[in-house]
Amino acid sequence: MISKRLRASLDGAVCIRDIFEEGKKLAAIYGKENIFNFSIGNPNVEPPAIVNETMKEVLDTEEPLTLHGYPANVGHPDVRRCVAGHLNKKFGMHYDENGIIMTSGAASALSILCNTFLDIDDEVITFAPYFWEYKSYVETLYGKLVPALCDQKTLQPDPETFEAAFTPKTRMVFINNPNNPTGAVYTEESIKKVAEIMERKQKEYGHPIYLISDEPYRLLAYGGLEVPYLPLYYKNTIVVYSYSKTLSIPGERVGYIALSDDVADYQDIIAGITASIRYLGYVNAPSLQQKILLKCVDASVDVSIYEKNRDLLYHSLTDIGYDCIHPDGAFYLFMRSLEPDDFEFCQKAKEERILMAPGTAFSGPGFVRISYCVPYEVVERSIPAFKRLYDKYQK
Amino acid sequence: MISKRLRASLDGAVCIRDIFEEGKKLAAIYGKENIFNFSIGNPNVEPPAIVNETMKEVLDTEEPLTLHGYPANVGHPDVRRCVAGHLNKKFGMHYDENGIIMTSGAASALSILCNTFLDIDDEVITFAPYFWEYKSYVETLYGKLVPALCDQKTLQPDPETFEAAFTPKTRMVFINNPNNPTGAVYTEESIKKVAEIMERKQKEYGHPIYLISDEPYRLLAYGGLEVPYLPLYYKNTIVVYSYSKTLSIPGERVGYIALSDDVADYQDIIAGITASIRYLGYVNAPSLQQKILLKCVDASVDVSIYEKNRDLLYHSLTDIGYDCIHPDGAFYLFMRSLEPDDFEFCQKAKEERILMAPGTAFSGPGFVRISYCVPYEVVERSIPAFKRLYDKYQK
Repeated sequence: MISKRLRASLDGAVCIRDIFEEGKKLAAIYGKENIFNFSIGNPNVEPPAIVNETMKEVLDTEEPLTLHGYPANVGHPDVRRCVAGHLNKKFGMHYDENGIIMTSGAASALSILCNTFLDIDDEVITFAPYFWEYKSYVETLYGKLVPALCDQKTLQPDPETFEAAFTPKTRMVFINNPNNPTGAVYTEESIKKVAEIMERKQKEYGHPIYLISDEPYRLLAYGGLEVPYLPLYYKNTIVVYSYSKTLSIPGERVGYIALSDDVADYQDIIAGITASIRYLGYVNAPSLQQKILLKCVDASVDVSIYEKNRDLLYHSLTDIGYDCIHPDGAFYLFMRSLEPDDFEFCQKAKEERILMAPGTAFSGPGFVRISYCVPYEVVERSIPAFKRLYDKYQK
Repeated sequence: MISKRLRASLDGAVCIRDIFEEGKKLAAIYGKENIFNFSIGNPNVEPPAIVNETMKEVLDTEEPLTLHGYPANVGHPDVRRCVAGHLNKKFGMHYDENGIIMTSGAASALSILCNTFLDIDDEVITFAPYFWEYKSYVETLYGKLVPALCDQKTLQPDPETFEAAFTPKTRMVFINNPNNPTGAVYTEESIKKVAEIMERKQKEYGHPIYLISDEPYRLLAYGGLEVPYLPLYYKNTIVVYSYSKTLSIPGERVGYIALSDDVADYQDIIAGITASIRYLGYVNAPSLQQKILLKCVDASVDVSIYEKNRDLLYHSLTDIGYDCIHPDGAFYLFMRSLEPDDFEFCQKAKEERILMAPGTAFSGPGFVRISYCVPYEVVERSIPAFKRLYDKYQK
């Protein structure tokens, strides 16, 4: 007696979380050190010490009734000012506190934006491969997610495919940079083309189309690479951020939505977001987690740990003979499956106790996603297993 | 360019939060002690000391990467076992950890259940007056909220009106006990009638109809009153709980959904809830807030403080001449408006610097809601203002 819609969705679901949970079970049987669980993006780098320090400081200094009481739906004003100031300094923006809305992470922000902008059958374009939950966020609110497949060699947005994806029902474009699942960082050149097409489409249809820049991996870009800040390229950009990866606190659910008053219908959007926070049952992002940002807004995990993993994994796998797209950010490596069916390939990998996510789950068939947010030793020990897997296909 | 649906909803909205924010502005002008802000249910009793103590203990003892990392979508297993054990002991239930799903408060739990059970145009009955956001949770997922007006003298469910509200599309019944906005505690007699009607309707339609017992105010019942535990009266009951009021931590967003394996389609519902937690962008309830329950599951604020407020307010207002329904729980008093238009009455009250919420906002026209979760001194000082307001209507 659950809803027909949910029933259908569950029956068709590929749940990466299930692969991860299976990995934990296998670890219990074979020993943790013998399972190479690359299935989900659970950060493995320690949160910076300032996270716990600040939590305790906040608990010691703030009046408990106020600290744990209801903040405004949009969040604590001092925290929002702090985030605005941080972004203004970093990107030369002109946010004020009204344009910063604290959310329970990026996932919640995307749901809230879907509720803000979508009527039934309205469309959201995203670049494929994409984080599989995008479809859920959009479809849960009865919208339609339209994938625009990236160039299969570079995994950069393909302008033609992107342009062809627009219809008069397009309300938003979701862009995830650096990208989950591919690890690609979309270049300034790609972004400029995306912006140019969107400007044209806005004119053609005579209404704003919002670019939703989902960037929880912003700080996880390697080799000194700069990730373009999209509001500087396209006026109607709304930024979605999460501290899950930067501070290694994904279980604590805190992030924000940022929009400047350059964004068309700025006031209406803020009113819509505020209502959606209530209507979807969020009420507010957890108060204590918001408050730590007053001290942690500039903090970050040691990103070099992920970069070291990436280097070892990318070089070892390509040395073996695998075809990998060089990942410049996030903690994912997208690798071509050794057989057309990437599910089947993931099954074979399991025989070597390697757990990966099939690309099909991300609308990237023929690939697998390797989440390298694991201890360096796990990457090291996994290499012979990857070699054995490769060799099986050479017979 | 926000959605048409949200636009319509915003245009029609009565936002009690706005009245509260207005109260804060008035306090800045006239002094906090001269404003009687009875508009929202923001707890004013200190959280028990064990809340902060446990938060710090958890921060000192748990490994940060695990503590702040992703728990399962449904929550930490140890916390879920702890909650199950607590409920089993208290109510003689037989929950196991699978039937306890941690949520970001009760509001999120209700949204998650709407997503779990509702297809477009499916119906949810609730007893009116009701917490106004019920309508938002249901309508955001394209369901229809059907109010069943309570007896206007007792504010108890009216069996006839309730029975008449059912259609083959009825999927759930929301019941809030003790009740916001009326402060009524639905009696065992009322509950037995509700259960009897629901059993009959289930048989008539040949499918389960779930009773969603939303009980954040369970511990706030006065004069030694017992609040019936609904799963003991109706098998297909799903309990929704929040620690917001019991621990005075509404800003921290933690609660749970509880169902026993007596509930029809138990496994499917758990799968549906788990997916809905992801699809709505929740991912999981904040990890640290979950963890404190291992120590705080039995803790409570000092409820006698609210009871003292209730006694003073109820007796003073009835002495003046106001017609109040005696409130047995929560921290709300429902009072008859002195003129047919309760909005107008609230406006007049503002001239005396009394802020209340119009009953119409809760489908309880002709009444006002007085939230007495304010310092005792505020209640005391408000009495002459209530007297002046009353006198204005006697001319």
